[in-house]
Amino acid sequence: MTTANKKKIASRPVLVTGFEPFAGEIDNPSLEIARALDGKRIAGHPVVGAILPTEFRRSLTVLGALLKRNRPQLVIAVGQAGGRSQICLERVAINLIDARISDNAGEQPVDVPVIRDAPSAYFSTLPLKAMLQGLIASGIPAVLSQSAGLYVCNQVMFGLLHQLQELRPRARGGFVHVPFLPQQATRHYNAPSMTLATMIQALTLCIETALATGDDLHFAAGATH
Amino acid sequence: MTTANKKKIASRPVLVTGFEPFAGEIDNPSLEIARALDGKRIAGHPVVGAILPTEFRRSLTVLGALLKRNRPQLVIAVGQAGGRSQICLERVAINLIDARISDNAGEQPVDVPVIRDAPSAYFSTLPLKAMLQGLIASGIPAVLSQSAGLYVCNQVMFGLLHQLQELRPRARGGFVHVPFLPQQATRHYNAPSMTLATMIQALTLCIETALATGDDLHFAAGATH
Amino acid sequence: MTTANKKKIASRPVLVTGFEPFAGEIDNPSLEIARALDGKRIAGHPVVGAILPTEFRRSLTVLGALLKRNRPQLVIAVGQAGGRSQICLERVAINLIDARISDNAGEQPVDVPVIRDAPSAYFSTLPLKAMLQGLIASGIPAVLSQSAGLYVCNQVMFGLLHQLQELRPRARGGFVHVPFLPQQATRHYNAPSMTLATMIQALTLCIETALATGDDLHFAAGATH
Amino acid sequence: MTTANKKKIASRPVLVTGFEPFAGEIDNPSLEIARALDGKRIAGHPVVGAILPTEFRRSLTVLGALLKRNRPQLVIAVGQAGGRSQICLERVAINLIDARISDNAGEQPVDVPVIRDAPSAYFSTLPLKAMLQGLIASGIPAVLSQSAGLYVCNQVMFGLLHQLQELRPRARGGFVHVPFLPQQATRHYNAPSMTLATMIQALTLCIETALATGDDLHFAAGATH
Repeated sequence: MTTANKKKIASRPVLVTGFEPFAGEIDNPSLEIARALDGKRIAGHPVVGAILPTEFRRSLTVLGALLKRNRPQLVIAVGQAGGRSQICLERVAINLIDARISDNAGEQPVDVPVIRDAPSAYFSTLPLKAMLQGLIASGIPAVLSQSAGLYVCNQVMFGLLHQLQELRPRARGGFVHVPFLPQQATRHYNAPSMTLATMIQALTLCIETALATGDDLHFAAGATH
Repeated sequence: MTTANKKKIASRPVLVTGFEPFAGEIDNPSLEIARALDGKRIAGHPVVGAILPTEFRRSLTVLGALLKRNRPQLVIAVGQAGGRSQICLERVAINLIDARISDNAGEQPVDVPVIRDAPSAYFSTLPLKAMLQGLIASGIPAVLSQSAGLYVCNQVMFGLLHQLQELRPRARGGFVHVPFLPQQATRHYNAPSMTLATMIQALTLCIETALATGDDLHFAAGATH
Repeated sequence: MTTANKKKIASRPVLVTGFEPFAGEIDNPSLEIARALDGKRIAGHPVVGAILPTEFRRSLTVLGALLKRNRPQLVIAVGQAGGRSQICLERVAINLIDARISDNAGEQPVDVPVIRDAPSAYFSTLPLKAMLQGLIASGIPAVLSQSAGLYVCNQVMFGLLHQLQELRPRARGGFVHVPFLPQQATRHYNAPSMTLATMIQALTLCIETALATGDDLHFAAGATH
Repeated sequence: MTTANKKKIASRPVLVTGFEPFAGEIDNPSLEIARALDGKRIAGHPVVGAILPTEFRRSLTVLGALLKRNRPQLVIAVGQAGGRSQICLERVAINLIDARISDNAGEQPVDVPVIRDAPSAYFSTLPLKAMLQGLIASGIPAVLSQSAGLYVCNQVMFGLLHQLQELRPRARGGFVHVPFLPQQATRHYNAPSMTLATMIQALTLCIETALATGDDLHFAAGATH
């Protein structure tokens, strides 16, 4: 491979997506993270930050268009997980939707697959344990999570991994859940939170680690139940 | 189908499995449930209650032998989920093991599949929402759960659904996590618990509902994250 | 003291109070406990079980009348603490009301003392550590609690200890918080619960221990924060 | 009063105390807060930040010396409450010690009063609701707390309010519990945290509000149990 080709590959973009506020919130930390990282350059790669609608019907269409337009090497979709305390690196997306609340378009699908005739689940293709180790080494609280729920976040993670497998099998992708922002937590009794600055640092570290890591590390980090 | 054949099918056994105590516990509610239901008859079906070793290597061999010997129409594997408050009907098993602690044989596999070349996940084939509705109607606290963890419980749920699909595709199967027993909770600061009597009533209801229900109900019961 | 007098003292009643349902609940475990124990005899003492209104204005008047009528040797007021997992033996009542929700009469006092010119707090005069040890030895999950809140439960505990000190300084009294009943927990997402039978056993044990114990035990059971 | 006298009063110091790390931690956010604020000037008042030993025997002696030397107008003692999610403004200190773990000197007193013959409890004399409102208006998650535990934090809060009442009855004082720092939370599974910058902003706001507020606000903010 020529140096010019190498450089071209090295400079392929990283896509970071966030969601519009939902569930009565006026903020969404994932939206702020995507906005903050948009236009940045991490380890030589331009970052495209984009916002997805929190809607079952439109989220994957918008994501698909972003994948085609940007041809990213790495995609991290980010979503808000109100009530969680730490950065949650999601391991797996399930081919199932069961919406406890309506989405932003008023839809509430129950017990339907994300994509008919697709596999029952996709595992994140991000090097999650290297990312976890990197976050903890930088003093950022993080855990691996075994479930991204059954709402739009899980749907987008599933759809992302499905589309990547079909369109860009060499690209890596996955999903990261983040806590409430402090100002959101003031409106939820005793809810944990994390500052936007910490979250941006966390996602930057995740991207750097994912770009720098080939095979993932292996150390015990699972839940017993 | 002749009446005799019908009767024969109707009387096929129900298999309920529990686990040996693990993680330093001297009790395991799932073991007590399996013992209590063993030999009972529910809706005309004999119940076989059996104990699985809490060991990655042996659990699925023992389960496989039980399936072959008993040829059950319905299988519910039960496991202890210390820290959870309610009966947890598990939706999905993941083809991944990441043991945070050693099993009872001292093994601690990390980041390996339950079964190589098997699907990424299996969904429970139990009518979970009918079971949830039945439990709640009887005053028993219950929720659907999106993750059975990445330890022996998830391994057994995955292996069960894999084996059923291959050997007994018409049989239904799944996994139910139960809280600590009260006496266990006395040794865990502020941990929730449930009495054995309530758990036995819950599993009996689950079996009755699974035997009586064709297509499952559909109402919203998912987690948003 | 003559044997007749001793017997008379020995047979003085035990008063157990519960509350009417509140906060939209249709049940209250404390009410069921008081009803179940009413008329029972524990260690030779008749038990009077009575119901207090969940109202700031009337609760202490009703309690005062009960104390005067029954002249109990031991008083345990019981209240519901939805969300807690275990039997909570309350250590202290605070001379402060700050009602987050209205009481059953529609009153919502904020930042007022329970009793003007009374001490800032009263400690339970029950042998809490002996009771805790007795509960745990019987397999009933229990903890000591550092706060009974700032609602009607704390008000009743404070008023009880104030009235006992003035009227019946030799009588012992205190407050026990109990979790939701299972049927209540079915209406609260993932809430812990305890069966009425376990709660009745717990309160019976508490009464037996309080009647049989002179000086309390001393072992570490505090919260660090 | 002359302008010179007024100025002298206006410039009386604010004392902020933190604790040495304890319970196996290598950090303590309260220590960092006290260090960061030491030497600052808030609303014209010099801030003295000082560190207390996390020891039952020495903490109150050191605190007493600080009060005598600095003659503060306002004292806020700060302590770490690992596991809590938000800034916790403590309402009340109890005249009781029950140490679940040894202090930094290896002492573990159980069921003894903080100060013999002192009242059963002291209420914070800080304008807690004005402080709560100020924090929330600034987007900082905060709650009122009904218990500071029964360890060194509660002891120091009790001793502080006792000493202020005797020595400096016009000075205001109280206690604020803060969550783990992010780097601490990385060593505690799924623990909530708060950045030092947010905590310093929170304490600065608390001091400003306490200095600027005469009578406290009154709005409902209590716990029901």
